[in-house]
Amino acid sequence: MKLTISKNELNDAIQQVAKAASARPAIPILGGIKIDVNHQFVTLTASDTDISIQSFITVEQEDLVIATIEKPGSVVLPSKFFAEIVKKLPSDQVVIEVGANFQTTIRSGSTEIQMVGLDPEEFPVLPSIEQNEVLQVPGDLIKAMIRQTILAASTSEQTPILTGVLWNLHDGELKFVATDRHRLASRTTKVDAESSFNFSNVVIAARTLNELSRLIPDQNTVVDIVVADNQVLFKVDNILFYTRILDGTYPDTSKIIPQVFETELVLDTKNLTDAIDRAYLMSREEKTNIVRLTTMDDGMIEISSSSTELGRVTEQLEASSMTGQPLRIAFNSKYMLDVLKVLDSEKLFIGFTGAMRPIIIRPMDHDYSMYVILPYRTTS
Amino acid sequence: MKLTISKNELNDAIQQVAKAASARPAIPILGGIKIDVNHQFVTLTASDTDISIQSFITVEQEDLVIATIEKPGSVVLPSKFFAEIVKKLPSDQVVIEVGANFQTTIRSGSTEIQMVGLDPEEFPVLPSIEQNEVLQVPGDLIKAMIRQTILAASTSEQTPILTGVLWNLHDGELKFVATDRHRLASRTTKVDAESSFNFSNVVIAARTLNELSRLIPDQNTVVDIVVADNQVLFKVDNILFYTRILDGTYPDTSKIIPQVFETELVLDTKNLTDAIDRAYLMSREEKTNIVRLTTMDDGMIEISSSSTELGRVTEQLEASSMTGQPLRIAFNSKYMLDVLKVLDSEKLFIGFTGAMRPIIIRPMDHDYSMYVILPYRTTS
Repeated sequence: MKLTISKNELNDAIQQVAKAASARPAIPILGGIKIDVNHQFVTLTASDTDISIQSFITVEQEDLVIATIEKPGSVVLPSKFFAEIVKKLPSDQVVIEVGANFQTTIRSGSTEIQMVGLDPEEFPVLPSIEQNEVLQVPGDLIKAMIRQTILAASTSEQTPILTGVLWNLHDGELKFVATDRHRLASRTTKVDAESSFNFSNVVIAARTLNELSRLIPDQNTVVDIVVADNQVLFKVDNILFYTRILDGTYPDTSKIIPQVFETELVLDTKNLTDAIDRAYLMSREEKTNIVRLTTMDDGMIEISSSSTELGRVTEQLEASSMTGQPLRIAFNSKYMLDVLKVLDSEKLFIGFTGAMRPIIIRPMDHDYSMYVILPYRTTS
Repeated sequence: MKLTISKNELNDAIQQVAKAASARPAIPILGGIKIDVNHQFVTLTASDTDISIQSFITVEQEDLVIATIEKPGSVVLPSKFFAEIVKKLPSDQVVIEVGANFQTTIRSGSTEIQMVGLDPEEFPVLPSIEQNEVLQVPGDLIKAMIRQTILAASTSEQTPILTGVLWNLHDGELKFVATDRHRLASRTTKVDAESSFNFSNVVIAARTLNELSRLIPDQNTVVDIVVADNQVLFKVDNILFYTRILDGTYPDTSKIIPQVFETELVLDTKNLTDAIDRAYLMSREEKTNIVRLTTMDDGMIEISSSSTELGRVTEQLEASSMTGQPLRIAFNSKYMLDVLKVLDSEKLFIGFTGAMRPIIIRPMDHDYSMYVILPYRTTS
């Protein structure tokens, strides 16, 4: 294998795939980036077996020669060092040449690097996904849906299925749900799909969705999604992103969501966020993050928190609307802040069905998203 | 004590002093910020006994009322929470009122905070420094001198004196020296001081100088420096910064610096930095950071490093000038990079007196700074 390639194109592709290489590989090959060179494409692949990312560099792009291929071939190079050194090479052009025993020479300007390459035959084989039905979703929409749900995914490996986000497609509606049993986030969207095209119980690790999000440009991208038996494939521009579907059955969360409320509030999102943020600072000192919300007689609500050592924060805030029973409830302020930070609506609805029942938070501007927080049982 | 004060002015002063409050105070009072209020000034003080910072807010500034004092007094409030909450208060104005047992109420907009205050009588007393001779140095110069020397200070508490930077004033020349026994940095400057005004063996912790640096604005400031028996006082605008002088006698470093060289090189600073940076990436994999420099016959030098697992980086670079004996030397590339990053000269001089003698690095544009790195003894 021998080629000359533009440093910037090579560097971009490395940055795209490198996230999938294991930081602490069980065997060295899993910490590598595989380079496959033919006369059309230079393909980079990294895989920690849970996720695999592949980036294609087209050798000639609109009369522009990105790479000159002298001899096709393959090699696997250690990801971390390869990524760092390419970024710092002195010239715009990089020559990569693979010799006997995959010994690789990289030249750029007056820099020469000898690298111990590995046998590409030992590299994990990517899942073969038949070109099933393809779901096409705008990139910025997928990113928003990920951001608005992963906050509620569990970070504990004790229940692995809850570390994922559940994806369902039914009747042209794509729905994401995440819960860690203390809170729940749900986000739906209409998509352009035949009503016969359905899937359910597709659960993808929140961590993986975070990585996927980084690969999607903010604007003007369509993501192609193919769901296979135990894998999902995402195609973003020149990148293929494969991820495993988490094993197990995602719990049915529909029953925990109350439909009627004893107390209903409409509040200004920014004012509530700021007030809870200040109360959170005090609650954090107690490690519990407990904040109290109390409705008052005059259409006001009070947000408060206290710490035995430090003191007490009390916030008053006017409700845009308040109906139903008076209320005094305690909840985890960090959970509430997580929701408020991703709630894309100027005003929000909060529904309560009593001090020990789930709290529902919904944007007022649309009905695409819904959040649930379980309250705390407190003595006072 | 009761006053109304501008949130921004209060916040600025808190940020200035908070660095001196202990993050993990042995007794709670050392984790606090003392507020002293009289009709001229609101004074904030924090002290971990090693360093103390005091910031003065003038109550009326050019017809602008910054604070309205209803009742003078003092209180100590917990630094971390106080700093965080003030930043997030909803209104531009903050009312602070101290009641019985130093119970403190902070009000801003519809936010009310009760804080457990502490008795200011228990707060550490600041060192009293007689107004000795005052050395005046431009702020940006002090910052540059700190930045160009602290890199060589030791981070090991085994020899506490070497964790500091040595300051000497002699005959109108101010000199900073730092060394961790493996490398040395020295920086001098002419200052406006009577030749009779001298000091020596003033050693200030590098960590402290770092904090001092942050307090000095980048432009148009003069720093007043007063050296007392075991304390140094810095005055920067409205801030007083006190620091302890480290105990002990700083070693005499003048003898380790060679004056004549067997090999002399002049190199382009940026080219050398980039080449060593790439070699460093490889050397880091071996944990040793060892990089080799070899002079070649054709006026070129070679920089190289190798790792048994990864491979080898070789860099060639043209010397602007090369005189004396051929040379092959090994050194810590991280130490060299630290020097190159602060060297404010387009070209630099490197002097060698043999493979096991100190390496001298000097800027070509001026003679204010000088660096020494001890080479590594290597087998090959």
